[in-house]
Amino acid sequence: MIDLDLKVGELGERALVRYLRSRVPQGPGVSVGPGDDAAAVETGPLTLVTTDSLVEGQHFERDWSPGRLLGRKALTVNLSDIAAMGGVPRYATVSLHLPPDLRLSFVAGLYDGLLERAAETGVSLVGGNVARSSGPVVIDVALLGAGDRLITRKGAAPGDLLVVTGSLGAAAAGLDLVRQGARLNADGEVEATGVWTDSSRPAVLDCLRAFLDPCPPLSFARAISEQEDLVHAAMDVSDGLSSDLPELCQESGLLCVVDPEAVPVDPKAAALERARGGDSLGLALHGGEDYQLLMAVPPDRLAAVHDLAVVWDVPLHTIGEFSSGAPAVSLRQDERLSPLAPAGHDAFGGPRLLSPTRPTLG
Amino acid sequence: MIDLDLKVGELGERALVRYLRSRVPQGPGVSVGPGDDAAAVETGPLTLVTTDSLVEGQHFERDWSPGRLLGRKALTVNLSDIAAMGGVPRYATVSLHLPPDLRLSFVAGLYDGLLERAAETGVSLVGGNVARSSGPVVIDVALLGAGDRLITRKGAAPGDLLVVTGSLGAAAAGLDLVRQGARLNADGEVEATGVWTDSSRPAVLDCLRAFLDPCPPLSFARAISEQEDLVHAAMDVSDGLSSDLPELCQESGLLCVVDPEAVPVDPKAAALERARGGDSLGLALHGGEDYQLLMAVPPDRLAAVHDLAVVWDVPLHTIGEFSSGAPAVSLRQDERLSPLAPAGHDAFGGPRLLSPTRPTLG
Repeated sequence: MIDLDLKVGELGERALVRYLRSRVPQGPGVSVGPGDDAAAVETGPLTLVTTDSLVEGQHFERDWSPGRLLGRKALTVNLSDIAAMGGVPRYATVSLHLPPDLRLSFVAGLYDGLLERAAETGVSLVGGNVARSSGPVVIDVALLGAGDRLITRKGAAPGDLLVVTGSLGAAAAGLDLVRQGARLNADGEVEATGVWTDSSRPAVLDCLRAFLDPCPPLSFARAISEQEDLVHAAMDVSDGLSSDLPELCQESGLLCVVDPEAVPVDPKAAALERARGGDSLGLALHGGEDYQLLMAVPPDRLAAVHDLAVVWDVPLHTIGEFSSGAPAVSLRQDERLSPLAPAGHDAFGGPRLLSPTRPTLG
Repeated sequence: MIDLDLKVGELGERALVRYLRSRVPQGPGVSVGPGDDAAAVETGPLTLVTTDSLVEGQHFERDWSPGRLLGRKALTVNLSDIAAMGGVPRYATVSLHLPPDLRLSFVAGLYDGLLERAAETGVSLVGGNVARSSGPVVIDVALLGAGDRLITRKGAAPGDLLVVTGSLGAAAAGLDLVRQGARLNADGEVEATGVWTDSSRPAVLDCLRAFLDPCPPLSFARAISEQEDLVHAAMDVSDGLSSDLPELCQESGLLCVVDPEAVPVDPKAAALERARGGDSLGLALHGGEDYQLLMAVPPDRLAAVHDLAVVWDVPLHTIGEFSSGAPAVSLRQDERLSPLAPAGHDAFGGPRLLSPTRPTLG
């Protein structure tokens, strides 16, 4: 048995790598797993690849991110990208940048979460590396997936409806809660409600979970891609609707008009925000980290999309419509249109601790 | 035209990503390139994947690592891994962690090097992301490759000869030179010889290049893998012979006896080291960052391996032999065997600035 109270710098690189390797199960389709120069994995003719990092001080703080939840989320943010392409996640590599005085127990917890989430989603960990960090903990995941009928951001057509899964704003409310002293433990249960009374506990739990252990509609996204032309384009909402939707418009070369009253503000986030006198629509438009799916759906396929949503128990809302015009997003208010300016996450935009920096290069 | 004097924090994430994206050419086999949730690439039935990072303060310092050379090296350390598996490199993702006050010119130089090295080796950049760093610049590359006849670390047999390409120790000498004030400019030419006189310039150049712009025997490694059973096992030397060879012994379950007099110490590194009264064999055994290829060659295939080495202009040296026994490495000295203890790079082993932390998880 290894002593989890050790610091990773005391353990040393090789022993740390041996420990991490020993925890990785052999997965299907893995010809060469961890421990060689590279992994070799079985893939289709087409391989999806995405990469995303969680950086301490930027996306999380250790005092409110239990290792297990952080490990789950490091994989989840990449799962969301593969799902938004209509793919099946298969193989992941994990690069860890760790300060030498970090306890092994934190890394072990991180791996608990990574491996648990990998098992839930059929992903095999096939490689990675560890490096010493002079400061922040960084978890960098590259995820490979399989896909044949891909859903890109390019295919939206004039007249398509803008449909979003789930609700928006809960993750941003969760970040606010963390700042107000609310905490989840490693099991994902409320450890502290912070400034909130116990009667708010259910709302606190849901919003903290949305932020610390997000749950994108992976199966629904996969089901959507299995039928031809059910949706024309899709992407995940990671940086916030106001930041992400312009990317879809840009790639498809279309204008999109959004009806703010149709935007599904998360009801628990809205209740907490109302109690503080805040603007819950702002949370939903700009908050980010929701990992819901944005889709451009042709009107005659909307019923079929709804049928799948019922099967997979995913709420759906139609919140806008695409039309010809210079690529942009407008809000319809009192029959007038006003531009929706991006106010979501920007990696260099300031100290705001939110969203892994996507959508970006891939 | 974009102003390269801007700081990345002034430019902002989206503009930075747009700039980086605009520089990436469309490559063969890329169905969906940068700019979507994930990239989609054509691959064989088997895909190789490896990942490796360069971390400021750990593997490089900005004052002696021109961005262009750093970009080249960030890809090269991964190319070396794919080559050591006998694969063909195809697609890369690049995650950049950048402090907001970093000049765009540095990032542009980094991309110069990445794209140049990618073009040299037939690799397409297909994705990545940028994140704000609270301190060090981090470049994390994941590289996908194709391979059918893979060369792992597992297949060495008793009686196989241990053969190494090129020479060892030049990169470690290059690190010493950097500490002594020697510098390359972005074109890879000597900008300063540091404490050394001008007569040492050719040796300084070669050792600095070995460290800052390494050149693994990629084509030779590929040629080796194209013929069946030419070598039984292979790996690249990244952390140093004394650290890496035990991994090959462990994976193949064999003892390896190394003849120290046969180890090809880089002659220029040896000359510089002699001038300082140092131990150049130590550089070659423990130095690391050489990115040469270690192979287990059956004796009856040695001539064929040498023939390929002549074609690809790669020096080869037989430096040891595998035999049955507990996995370990021994040095033969005066007909006696002494254990060769790992003294190469350990990510958490201290302040020594060397080698991306491989061999690790993959």
